[in-house]
Amino acid sequence: MKKKQIAILGSTGSIGTQALQVIEEHSDLYEVYCLTANNRVELLAEQAHRFHPAAIVIANEARYDELKRLTDDIPDVKVYAGAQAINEIVEAKPIDIVLTAMVGFAGLTPTIHAIKARKTIALANKETLVVAGELIGNLATQYHAPILPVDSEHSAIFQSLVGEDVNRIDKILLTASGGPFRNFTIEQLAQVTKADALRHPTWDMGAKITIDSASMMNKGFEVIEAKWLFGVKASQIQVLVHPQSIVHSAVQFDDGAVKAQLGVPDMRLPIQYAFSYPKRLTLSGERLDLFKTRSLEFFEPDLKKFRCLALAFEAIEKGGNMPCIVNAANEIVNRGFLEDKCGFLQMSDIIAETMQRCTYDASPTYDTYIATDAEARRIATELMNK
Amino acid sequence: MKKKQIAILGSTGSIGTQALQVIEEHSDLYEVYCLTANNRVELLAEQAHRFHPAAIVIANEARYDELKRLTDDIPDVKVYAGAQAINEIVEAKPIDIVLTAMVGFAGLTPTIHAIKARKTIALANKETLVVAGELIGNLATQYHAPILPVDSEHSAIFQSLVGEDVNRIDKILLTASGGPFRNFTIEQLAQVTKADALRHPTWDMGAKITIDSASMMNKGFEVIEAKWLFGVKASQIQVLVHPQSIVHSAVQFDDGAVKAQLGVPDMRLPIQYAFSYPKRLTLSGERLDLFKTRSLEFFEPDLKKFRCLALAFEAIEKGGNMPCIVNAANEIVNRGFLEDKCGFLQMSDIIAETMQRCTYDASPTYDTYIATDAEARRIATELMNK
Repeated sequence: MKKKQIAILGSTGSIGTQALQVIEEHSDLYEVYCLTANNRVELLAEQAHRFHPAAIVIANEARYDELKRLTDDIPDVKVYAGAQAINEIVEAKPIDIVLTAMVGFAGLTPTIHAIKARKTIALANKETLVVAGELIGNLATQYHAPILPVDSEHSAIFQSLVGEDVNRIDKILLTASGGPFRNFTIEQLAQVTKADALRHPTWDMGAKITIDSASMMNKGFEVIEAKWLFGVKASQIQVLVHPQSIVHSAVQFDDGAVKAQLGVPDMRLPIQYAFSYPKRLTLSGERLDLFKTRSLEFFEPDLKKFRCLALAFEAIEKGGNMPCIVNAANEIVNRGFLEDKCGFLQMSDIIAETMQRCTYDASPTYDTYIATDAEARRIATELMNK
Repeated sequence: MKKKQIAILGSTGSIGTQALQVIEEHSDLYEVYCLTANNRVELLAEQAHRFHPAAIVIANEARYDELKRLTDDIPDVKVYAGAQAINEIVEAKPIDIVLTAMVGFAGLTPTIHAIKARKTIALANKETLVVAGELIGNLATQYHAPILPVDSEHSAIFQSLVGEDVNRIDKILLTASGGPFRNFTIEQLAQVTKADALRHPTWDMGAKITIDSASMMNKGFEVIEAKWLFGVKASQIQVLVHPQSIVHSAVQFDDGAVKAQLGVPDMRLPIQYAFSYPKRLTLSGERLDLFKTRSLEFFEPDLKKFRCLALAFEAIEKGGNMPCIVNAANEIVNRGFLEDKCGFLQMSDIIAETMQRCTYDASPTYDTYIATDAEARRIATELMNK
């Protein structure tokens, strides 16, 4: 059987490296066609030596020479640089699956290119759907490009829907660990540092998403993502704080049956499932032991304390380019928080203010998104530096 | 669309009456073709007036005249009596689905008749598979008769397997409420009365199954049933005591993913799902609220305290007619306990002793089962009356 050719956009991040583990475990089925990274040339070069892809791309063009030098002993691996090179490489004919594991708004354009080239999209970059869910959904339908979720929550929902009729969905139960500050008071939240936030209790993730998890903006984005992936209204999505992170999410059907996918927290499962769907493959590693876990708890999220989650619901309710505004502002304050330029609670204040000030467009096009993203970033940056 | 014609064997019991509620809620899709009961002529006559089936059957022939009199105003409803009449009626051409909701070994023969007539079997009578799982499985394959489980646990497993490859099952997680005596000591168990046992914490069921639940023999039977329904080894079935009865059961696949079906305890769901499979229909009633439940707990069953569960595992390990022996002995001691003829802990003692004494047959036929059932009942009765 021909091996499936996989492109990994963002191969040096947490999802990218775990995807390579999955490919290594099933090297009889999958092959790396290309790898891209933003900045980390050393790791990208190391991966190129190990997996021998047809091509590698470094987004930051300033680091091209370094990458070229680090891979001059493997001349059969082509080296490119820049965002445009990524857009082009995903269209390469041999590629079957494009794993979009880069961070932030940067994921949007290459994902559109991959969809138009009719690739199967293993979607780990949630900002793509947050920013432009409607556009992406329409393109995926038009080009018959399947979009398979790689987020553990959306994969759980997707797995729960296998063999089911999506028209029978009553609601989606989206679980959230609640982050490290679940039981903090507002006063404590005001004092939170980036070091506190980077200690996520259950999932091992990159810095951006870890901060988003601490603020629950990540969960807000997942609500928006779920809306587009599964064709439901935001009001049909219920967020459940579930500190054990064992129930990865669930679906309630209109006969009252709830189907859930559970497991130990391990991102390799949703990655592998997106690659192997509709089949399952073996996966090594720890297994769920409910006797050890003993108790699974569920709490209502506190939207006053975690205002980012409320803002995300507000944005998807408002529609148009509003989620794009929220995403852009969030990228600014997230980076700002990591660079000690803004406090934990200020993040949601600045996002809310940016939502007020940025130009609203009820029917955005691709160009609108690009413009909105730039405008919202400018506003949020100004607000942060005030 | 032609309405599906349904035969309900055991219509006056807990499952039977709930099945009639389901049919009433979806009277555009389903119609009652026939109803059978063991003894309760008044309720059967009432149901006949309400649903106007083509035929009704009372198993106890002594009550035929009474039933006939109670239904003489609906002469278009044919009235029959006796076990043989049940075997014949399930073969009636118009019937699409036979719901086997009668109690105990009595379910075996009519189920075989229904399978041979190529009906879809909605299986609520678990003793059928406990006693003769291999035979039933072979017949179902030979006659292409689908067997759809109606037990909430097996329905949950079945629902979790929709769209999945059964060859990818790693293990089955079979949940158990643990019954009313979950936290009792052996000393306390020795003192238990039938009134104590009949107070089941979460499920509203008939007397026989309620006692089986209290002793956990019911869970042992469900292990055997699961083995035959899903083609797994007994060693792949793990029993989890889950007092909240919210997770109705789950399947772990060999990629570590666990899929579960959850919901409020409501037997109408598995009944309806067996009728509507592979579709779902709406179902009125309470919905799961995990914020109200708050916490889901899981404990290992205590096989010393609940020896019946250990005996069931032993029986299925041994195979042949051993589960049939256990079932027969259990029917005797269950009735004995309800009639104050034997104590709670004596039940498992008598079953274990019957397993020792009864003639073992590694490759039983239908006739062996009939003979084994009679022999085991005789032995258990003797042991109980000693």
